[in-house]
Amino acid sequence: MQVSDTVEISGHLMDYGILSRILDDIREYGGDYTIDRFDVGHEAGDTSYAQITVSGEDDDALQRLLMRLQTHGTNLVHPGEAVLETVEQEGVFPDGFYSTTNLDTQVRVKGRWLTVSNPEMDCGLVVLGEGDDLSVRTIPMSDARTGMRIVCGASGIKVTPPAAKEGGDGFGFMESVVSSEKPQAVLVRGVADGMRAAKANGKKVLWVGGPGVVHTGAAPAMVALVNAGFVDVLFAGNALATHDIEASLYGTSLGVDLSQGRGVEHGHEHHIRALNTIRKEGSIAAAVESGVLTSGVMHAMVKAGKEFVLVGSVRDDGPLPDVYTDVIEGQRAMRAGLADVGYCLMVATMLHSVATGNILPATVPLVCVDINPATVTKLADRGSSQAQGIVTDVGLFLEQLALELVEDYRASRF
Amino acid sequence: MQVSDTVEISGHLMDYGILSRILDDIREYGGDYTIDRFDVGHEAGDTSYAQITVSGEDDDALQRLLMRLQTHGTNLVHPGEAVLETVEQEGVFPDGFYSTTNLDTQVRVKGRWLTVSNPEMDCGLVVLGEGDDLSVRTIPMSDARTGMRIVCGASGIKVTPPAAKEGGDGFGFMESVVSSEKPQAVLVRGVADGMRAAKANGKKVLWVGGPGVVHTGAAPAMVALVNAGFVDVLFAGNALATHDIEASLYGTSLGVDLSQGRGVEHGHEHHIRALNTIRKEGSIAAAVESGVLTSGVMHAMVKAGKEFVLVGSVRDDGPLPDVYTDVIEGQRAMRAGLADVGYCLMVATMLHSVATGNILPATVPLVCVDINPATVTKLADRGSSQAQGIVTDVGLFLEQLALELVEDYRASRF
Amino acid sequence: MQVSDTVEISGHLMDYGILSRILDDIREYGGDYTIDRFDVGHEAGDTSYAQITVSGEDDDALQRLLMRLQTHGTNLVHPGEAVLETVEQEGVFPDGFYSTTNLDTQVRVKGRWLTVSNPEMDCGLVVLGEGDDLSVRTIPMSDARTGMRIVCGASGIKVTPPAAKEGGDGFGFMESVVSSEKPQAVLVRGVADGMRAAKANGKKVLWVGGPGVVHTGAAPAMVALVNAGFVDVLFAGNALATHDIEASLYGTSLGVDLSQGRGVEHGHEHHIRALNTIRKEGSIAAAVESGVLTSGVMHAMVKAGKEFVLVGSVRDDGPLPDVYTDVIEGQRAMRAGLADVGYCLMVATMLHSVATGNILPATVPLVCVDINPATVTKLADRGSSQAQGIVTDVGLFLEQLALELVEDYRASRF
Amino acid sequence: MQVSDTVEISGHLMDYGILSRILDDIREYGGDYTIDRFDVGHEAGDTSYAQITVSGEDDDALQRLLMRLQTHGTNLVHPGEAVLETVEQEGVFPDGFYSTTNLDTQVRVKGRWLTVSNPEMDCGLVVLGEGDDLSVRTIPMSDARTGMRIVCGASGIKVTPPAAKEGGDGFGFMESVVSSEKPQAVLVRGVADGMRAAKANGKKVLWVGGPGVVHTGAAPAMVALVNAGFVDVLFAGNALATHDIEASLYGTSLGVDLSQGRGVEHGHEHHIRALNTIRKEGSIAAAVESGVLTSGVMHAMVKAGKEFVLVGSVRDDGPLPDVYTDVIEGQRAMRAGLADVGYCLMVATMLHSVATGNILPATVPLVCVDINPATVTKLADRGSSQAQGIVTDVGLFLEQLALELVEDYRASRF
Repeated sequence: MQVSDTVEISGHLMDYGILSRILDDIREYGGDYTIDRFDVGHEAGDTSYAQITVSGEDDDALQRLLMRLQTHGTNLVHPGEAVLETVEQEGVFPDGFYSTTNLDTQVRVKGRWLTVSNPEMDCGLVVLGEGDDLSVRTIPMSDARTGMRIVCGASGIKVTPPAAKEGGDGFGFMESVVSSEKPQAVLVRGVADGMRAAKANGKKVLWVGGPGVVHTGAAPAMVALVNAGFVDVLFAGNALATHDIEASLYGTSLGVDLSQGRGVEHGHEHHIRALNTIRKEGSIAAAVESGVLTSGVMHAMVKAGKEFVLVGSVRDDGPLPDVYTDVIEGQRAMRAGLADVGYCLMVATMLHSVATGNILPATVPLVCVDINPATVTKLADRGSSQAQGIVTDVGLFLEQLALELVEDYRASRF
Repeated sequence: MQVSDTVEISGHLMDYGILSRILDDIREYGGDYTIDRFDVGHEAGDTSYAQITVSGEDDDALQRLLMRLQTHGTNLVHPGEAVLETVEQEGVFPDGFYSTTNLDTQVRVKGRWLTVSNPEMDCGLVVLGEGDDLSVRTIPMSDARTGMRIVCGASGIKVTPPAAKEGGDGFGFMESVVSSEKPQAVLVRGVADGMRAAKANGKKVLWVGGPGVVHTGAAPAMVALVNAGFVDVLFAGNALATHDIEASLYGTSLGVDLSQGRGVEHGHEHHIRALNTIRKEGSIAAAVESGVLTSGVMHAMVKAGKEFVLVGSVRDDGPLPDVYTDVIEGQRAMRAGLADVGYCLMVATMLHSVATGNILPATVPLVCVDINPATVTKLADRGSSQAQGIVTDVGLFLEQLALELVEDYRASRF
Repeated sequence: MQVSDTVEISGHLMDYGILSRILDDIREYGGDYTIDRFDVGHEAGDTSYAQITVSGEDDDALQRLLMRLQTHGTNLVHPGEAVLETVEQEGVFPDGFYSTTNLDTQVRVKGRWLTVSNPEMDCGLVVLGEGDDLSVRTIPMSDARTGMRIVCGASGIKVTPPAAKEGGDGFGFMESVVSSEKPQAVLVRGVADGMRAAKANGKKVLWVGGPGVVHTGAAPAMVALVNAGFVDVLFAGNALATHDIEASLYGTSLGVDLSQGRGVEHGHEHHIRALNTIRKEGSIAAAVESGVLTSGVMHAMVKAGKEFVLVGSVRDDGPLPDVYTDVIEGQRAMRAGLADVGYCLMVATMLHSVATGNILPATVPLVCVDINPATVTKLADRGSSQAQGIVTDVGLFLEQLALELVEDYRASRF
Repeated sequence: MQVSDTVEISGHLMDYGILSRILDDIREYGGDYTIDRFDVGHEAGDTSYAQITVSGEDDDALQRLLMRLQTHGTNLVHPGEAVLETVEQEGVFPDGFYSTTNLDTQVRVKGRWLTVSNPEMDCGLVVLGEGDDLSVRTIPMSDARTGMRIVCGASGIKVTPPAAKEGGDGFGFMESVVSSEKPQAVLVRGVADGMRAAKANGKKVLWVGGPGVVHTGAAPAMVALVNAGFVDVLFAGNALATHDIEASLYGTSLGVDLSQGRGVEHGHEHHIRALNTIRKEGSIAAAVESGVLTSGVMHAMVKAGKEFVLVGSVRDDGPLPDVYTDVIEGQRAMRAGLADVGYCLMVATMLHSVATGNILPATVPLVCVDINPATVTKLADRGSSQAQGIVTDVGLFLEQLALELVEDYRASRF
C-alpha cells in the first residue's frame, strides 16, 4: 500500500540543479511524487521554494526515501516528533535508524527542537540526558552501546543546508571543476583568502596530506606555512610522516636527489631505517626533543606545538610510534581534532581525504587539491558536496600558496 | 675512509636493464664502483656474469649499499657469516639490521646456509633455535621482541632472483605495460592460463579486490569464478564486501540500477543499513547461515568454504564484523593467508594491492588489473618487480576471464 | 540601455538541470532575467514550461545571449521574421550572424517556416532560392561566398531539442558517466541494441576510430562487425588505417607481437614502409584489388563496399593516398558521409571524435568509448550533449560487442 | 639463408639500458646475434663498447634490422658505400629506402662522408648535386619526386647519438618521469636554465602550445615571457590562437570569468565570432595593425616580431586566416621554422607536440609539460627519446617559469 508524506525545500533550487537531484533520487528509490507547489525565484538571486508529496510502497520504503532526500536539504512540512528506539546489541543500531547527513540538523524530542552538536554523515543520532539536559549528537555505528536511545525514521528531524555562497565563490561546484583547465593562479589566491578568513575568525585550518607533499618537493613550502601559522591540525597517514622524516634523516643522499629533481624511489631501505630510528626514540616529538629529527614538516609541527593525527593503513611499514594502527580509534582521534576547524585543505591523498570528508560538517569550507581528477570526483561522490576540487600539481600549488601567504618565503625564493 | 667489498651477479643482465639499475643505485647511495669482470652472454639466451667492487665512505654506508644491491639479486663474492645482534627494545630492530628483499634468501649462521622460510620485503631476519634447530625467518619491525637475534649488515646473506621467464611470458615487464594499448583479449587468456597452471600445480589462487569489482557489474563473473574454484583466498577491505552485500540485500532497487547501467551513487544510506544488518548477524558467515545473505561474491566465498581476509581503513563506515580494524593484525592475517598461494590477481584496488605486494614473495606470479595506470605504476615503484600490469576495464576483464575459464558462465551468457 | 525579449522552453527542465544551465548562461553573458511564468510538471514524467524575459545592455549583447540560450532549446515567444544580411567578403559572415546549434531548426523567411536541412553547430544559416524554392541550410564560415544571404540575430528562428529519451535510455547524461565504475557488460548490450535499432530503421551506423582499435588487438572483432554489416561509414585519420595495414603487411613479426601481448612500439620503420607500399599502389582499394592488402579493418571495409573518410593531421607520416591532407576538404567529405546515419560510435580517438561531434545533428544517438575520461568530457564540453560516454577498455569493449552482435564470431572464439 | 653483418656502438650502454633495447629489437625483428666483443667501462663514468654480429633470414630482413638498430646509435663496423636508387613515382620511395633516425647522420657517397643537413626521423635520404657539390638531406615521403636519388639499405651510413648529458641533467630519462611525484620547483628552474643557455648560445627557443595555455590562465605569464624574449618561435593549432584572441576580444565577460576562476565553456559562440572578426581583418597581424586585437599571446608575438606557425586540424572551426589547412604544407612551414632552434618547450598539446617531435633533430633539448601523463608517454613512444617529460599543471608551471625568468613579472605579482 502506497504511503506518502510531504516535504519542502527552499533555496537556489534550479541554479544548482538541486531539484533535479531530488527527483532523480525519488525515481532511484522506486518512489513517486507530486509537486504540490513551486514558487520560482523570479529575479536573479531570488530563492525558490518547492513542496513535494513523496510516496513509497510502504512506510519503511518511504522513511528511507525521506531520509535520503534530507541529504539535499529537504524537510518534512509536518515533521512531528522524533521516534526513539533502544540499542539492544553492542555496535548495532535499531532497524530503521536515521542515517545522518553532514548538514546542520535539529531533532524534535518531547516537543523541543534540539540541535545536533557535531553533524557527520552516515552516523546515527543518539539522544542523551533527560528533561532540561536532553541533547542529541551523532554517533558512529561502532560506538552504539546497549540501552542508547537512537532516532529512527525521518520524523522530527530538520536539516539546514549551508547558506549559498555569494559571487565571491571562486570555484563553483565540484562537478564543474574536475578539470585541469582552470586559471590556476586565481585558485591559489582563493585558497589563500579562505585560510586568512578562517584565521581572522579565530578558526583553525585543517590540512589533510599525503606523501606527495614530500615527493613533489613541497615540504619547504609547507614548513613555511606551518611556521606562519596556517597549519593548525594535520591529518595524515604513516607515509607522509615517514617520507618527510626519511628526507630529514638521510638528507645528504636524498636531499641531493630532491634538489636535482630525480625521483624518490620507493622500496629502498631508507624509509625502513627512518621508521626504526623514530620507534627507538619513542615518538616523533621525542625525536625532535632529543635532536634526532631537526627539519621537515613533522619537525615544524612539533616545534610549533600543532596537533597531528596519523592513522595507519594496511600497506604501512613500521609504523611510526605516533600512528594509530586501529582505524576506528584513529577515526575517533580525527573527530576530536575537528574542534574549531574553520577551513580544510586536502592535498595529495585519496584515503585520508575521503576519511576526513566522511566526518566533516558541511559548514566547513573544504578544498581538495590533487593531480588525479579521480580523487576529487571520489570525494564528491561520497557526499562531500561542499567540496571544491582543484586538479593541479601539488608541488607547484603549495609553492604558490606559500608565496602568497608567507612574505619570508617569498623573500627567500627570489 | 673508503671501504669496499665485491659482489657478483649473473643472469640476463643487459636484456632487462638490471646492470643499469645496479649502477644507478650505487650512484644514488653516494658509492663508487669498479667492474672487475664482465662475461657477456654471446648468443641470444646466454646469461651474463658481472663482478663489481663497490665502495662507500664508511662501513655503515657500504653495508647499506650492499643490502640495497641485493634487491637486484647481487651477492657478495665472499659472503662470510651473518652478524647477529640482539633486540633491546620491543618493536625496534638493532641499528644496521638487514632489510630484506622479497627474493629467495639464504643466511649463513655458524657455518651453515639456512633458507629463509617466508621471504618478504622491508622486514628483518630473525634467527631462531639452536644447533640443529637453527632457522631464519623474516619478521616485520613491529613484531620484534626483546632478546631476538636479528641479522645485521650484508654479510652471510645470499639471494636468488626468480628464474627468468621463458617465451611464455605474455606481458613483459611492468614499465612497458603501463599502457592501455595492448591486445587485451590476449592478456585475458594469459591470466586464465596462469590460474589454470597454479591450480594444476596444487597451488592456491589469491585475489586482491576493490569495490570496483561490484561497481563495474563484475560480481556475477566473479561469483562464477569462485564457484568454479578459481578464487581460493580473497584479500579486500570493508568496501568490496559492503557494496557486494548491499547489492545483495537491496537487490530490487540497486539490482535494477546495475542492470540498467546507471551509476551507483555513494553516500546514500543503503550501505550503512547493509553494515548494520550484518553486524546484527555477527558475521558474514552467520548472515549466510541465517539466510539473510543469499547472493553475491561474499556469499559465494562462504558457501564454497574459501578464506577471506578483510582489513579496514580509516575511511570505513561500520565496519563489517569480519573486518580487522587494527591494520597490523590485519597484516598478520594476510601473511597467514599466503600459504600455498601460487598465483595472485589484483583487481581495482591500490591500497590492498600495495599491501599485498609488500608481503608477497617474488616467486609468486602477480598480475595487477586496473583502469588507472597509476595503480600499476605504484606497485612497481614499491618494489614488486615481478608484477605484470594490465591497464584495462575491470568489469569487461572479469567478464572475459569468466567466459574463458567457466563453461557454464559462457553458456549462461549467450 | 537595457533591451529585453521573452523566451520560452518546455521539457524536463528540472530533471536534467536545463533551467540551471540557462540561468548560468544569462549570468555569464552579463545579462539579467525575470521568470514570468513557470508551470511545473506535477507528476513524474510531466514536462515543465518556463517563460523568461531576458535583458542585455544593448541589442547586440541581447541577440548574442538569445542565440546562446537557443543551444539549450529555448525559443522566442514572438520569433518574428529572420533578418538577412549579405556576405561581402569570401569566407567571412556578416557581423551578428546567427551561430547555429546542432538541434532541429526552423527559420521564418517571408512569413514561412523553413526547416534547416542539415543542422550543425557553430555554422551560419544561408538562405537559398526564391519564392517557392526558398530553403535554408547550415554553412561553415569558410564556405561563405560573396552575395550569400545569411541569417543574423535570433529573430525568426525556432529550435526543437530531441525528444527526451524514455526508460530505455541505458546511460544517462554525460556528466554522470565520466566514471569507469559502471556495469560494463550492460553498456555493451546497450550499444548493440542501438546499432540493431538503427539498422532495423534502415539507417547507417557511423564509426569514428583511432589507432587504439588496432593496438588493443580489437581489429579482428571490428572486422567481424564490418562483415556483419554493423559498420557502414568509418571516419578516421591516417593512423588507424596505417597501423591496420602495417599489421596486415608485416603480419609475421607484428602478428606474433600482437598475439603474444607485447606492445606495439612506435617509431620503427614498419609503418613508414607500409605507407610507401600503399602509396605505390595508388590507394587502399587498389592495394586490395592487386592482392597486396589481404586482411584487416581497411581490407574488410573495401571488400564490403563501405565508405571511409580519412582526414589527416599535422603529425602524420606519409600519409596514405586516401587521406585528405586539407582539413577543410576533409570536413566537407565527412559532412557528405553523414547522410542517413542513424547511430554513431566513437572509439579511441579524441581528435576525430570532436571533429565528428562538431558536425553531427543532435538527433543522432552518439556513444563515445575511450579509456581516457578526458576524451569523453571534452566531447560533452564541446556541446555534443546527446553524447553518452563509456570509460572503458576499447579492446575488450569491441570484443564484447562482436560477441553480442556476430554469431560467427562467438562461435570462433570459444 | 641467414645473412649477417657486424655493428658496433659505444657509450653508456649499460647505464641507460641501451644494450638491452638493442637486443630486444633484434628479437622483435626475428633476427639473431652474437656479441663478438664487449669492453665494459670499469669505472663510473667510463664508456663501454660493443661489437655485435647480427643476422637475419635474408638480406631484406637484415637491412631493415640494421636500420632499426641505428635508431639506438649503432653503426656498421664496415659501413661501405651508400646504395642509391631512383624515385620512379611521385611521392613514393624506392623499396628498401633507408628510413631515417633523428640522430646526426653521415652518408658515404663516392668515397666521401657527407653530413645530412637536417636530421629528421621517418624520412628518406636524398642525394643532391654532383662532384664537389654532392650533398645529402632528409626528405619526407610526400616530397619524393621522380628521378631523385634515394639511399637504400643500411650501407654507407653512420649515426652519432647526442653526447651523454653530464650531471647537470636535471630530469633523467623519460620513462622515469611519467610521474607527478617530482620536486616541481626544481624542474621549473631546470627549464629556465635551459632557455637561458639556449639564448646565451645565440639559439632560438621554440614553443609548442595548446589551448590549455589560455584555459589555465597562463596567458599573462606567457605574454611576459614573449616580451622578455624567451619565445622565438611558436608552433600551435587553430585552438590556442582562437581562444587567446577570443579572451582578448570578449574581455569583459570572459575576462571576468578567467579572473574569477570559473571554467571556460566550450561550444558557445564567442570563439566563432572571434574567428569571423579576424577573418574579416585578413590576418592576425592585420588585426593587431588595425587595433582590433590589443592583447594576449598572439598580439605579443606579432608586436615582438616573432614567428608563429599555426597548423589546422579536422576539428577546427573557422579557421583563422593564418592557419595552414593543408597539414603537409603545415609540416613544411614547421620544418622551415626549426632553423637555429636550440631549445624546445611543449605545453599542453599532444597533437602538435608529437608533430614537432617527428621533425626535431635529437640534438635539440626538448621538454614536454602536460598534466596528462599519456601525452608525455606518447612522445617517448614515438621515438623522441631525448624528450624530458614533466607531468604538472601547465598554468602553475608557466606562472613559476615567468617568475623565474622575468623580473618585471615578479614585481607585478607580489
